[in-house]
Amino acid sequence: MYFLSILRHRSLRKRQFLLQAGDVCQYESFVIKGILRAYTVDKNGEEHIAMFAMEDWWISDLYSFLTGTPATQHIEALEECEVLQIEKNDLDKLYIEIPKFNRFMRILLQNAFVSNQQRILASISQTAEEQYQTFIKKFAALEQRVPQHQIASYLGITPETISRIRKKK
Amino acid sequence: MYFLSILRHRSLRKRQFLLQAGDVCQYESFVIKGILRAYTVDKNGEEHIAMFAMEDWWISDLYSFLTGTPATQHIEALEECEVLQIEKNDLDKLYIEIPKFNRFMRILLQNAFVSNQQRILASISQTAEEQYQTFIKKFAALEQRVPQHQIASYLGITPETISRIRKKK
Repeated sequence: MYFLSILRHRSLRKRQFLLQAGDVCQYESFVIKGILRAYTVDKNGEEHIAMFAMEDWWISDLYSFLTGTPATQHIEALEECEVLQIEKNDLDKLYIEIPKFNRFMRILLQNAFVSNQQRILASISQTAEEQYQTFIKKFAALEQRVPQHQIASYLGITPETISRIRKKK
Repeated sequence: MYFLSILRHRSLRKRQFLLQAGDVCQYESFVIKGILRAYTVDKNGEEHIAMFAMEDWWISDLYSFLTGTPATQHIEALEECEVLQIEKNDLDKLYIEIPKFNRFMRILLQNAFVSNQQRILASISQTAEEQYQTFIKKFAALEQRVPQHQIASYLGITPETISRIRKKK
């Protein structure tokens, strides 16, 4: 199948980088196995997690991928990972040669939009505890597999806050 | 043209609601003129702005629109507005009858994804002042037309913080 022929398989060790900030993000990556995180590092050296991706999710620094400019995000494997990667040129061709792929991606992006809106509203309206409860309800599988301090970094709250919430349970 | 025939024109007075939370969001609305805001109200009566939309932007409570469940967001005109609305059934038909519309929407949603990711990263990594500066750089036109306390509500910071930042300029 044409679609499969343009995918490139890649294995990553735990802690290996799929992308380093400063390089151009040349691939959209579909996760077959494992968990990755995309994150930025601010001028004080603090990490901020833009997204996690686990089995059946896509991950990239989308702005870098679309524009060909250097990525602002690192993407790192949190477990041993297997991903399928597609290059920008091949993806652009795919959108033209298999128009249904636009529909497929449009629906994925709609769901991502809803999810991002919920995350934004939670971050501006909920307490740290409410945000943590929302997260573990929505992403129960992630909570089992990702260290607490990284969930804190995703939510923009301190790891101490999460420890305190978990002790109360 | 088929596309135009399924659009419904609607005018709104300033402060008029396009959607009230609790009702199902039956339309995607394309803004021809004016500015609207989508927002939630929390249990303490505080408002949190999910998004603004001005000329050439689309606005809806997307989750409600897609699932037919009651909206959690209000959408209110901040100025006199003109919008073009499309119903869910007609939009679904459009995606099938004019497949290019998937491509068009896929690209819009890609840009929205990037924009939402930037907003999320700003909210978890930047100070209130940095977030405000980022906002007015990115949305200069909005800053002129939207009251400061609503920008504060969009950013999840206090109006006092914005006043303090503006005085320092």
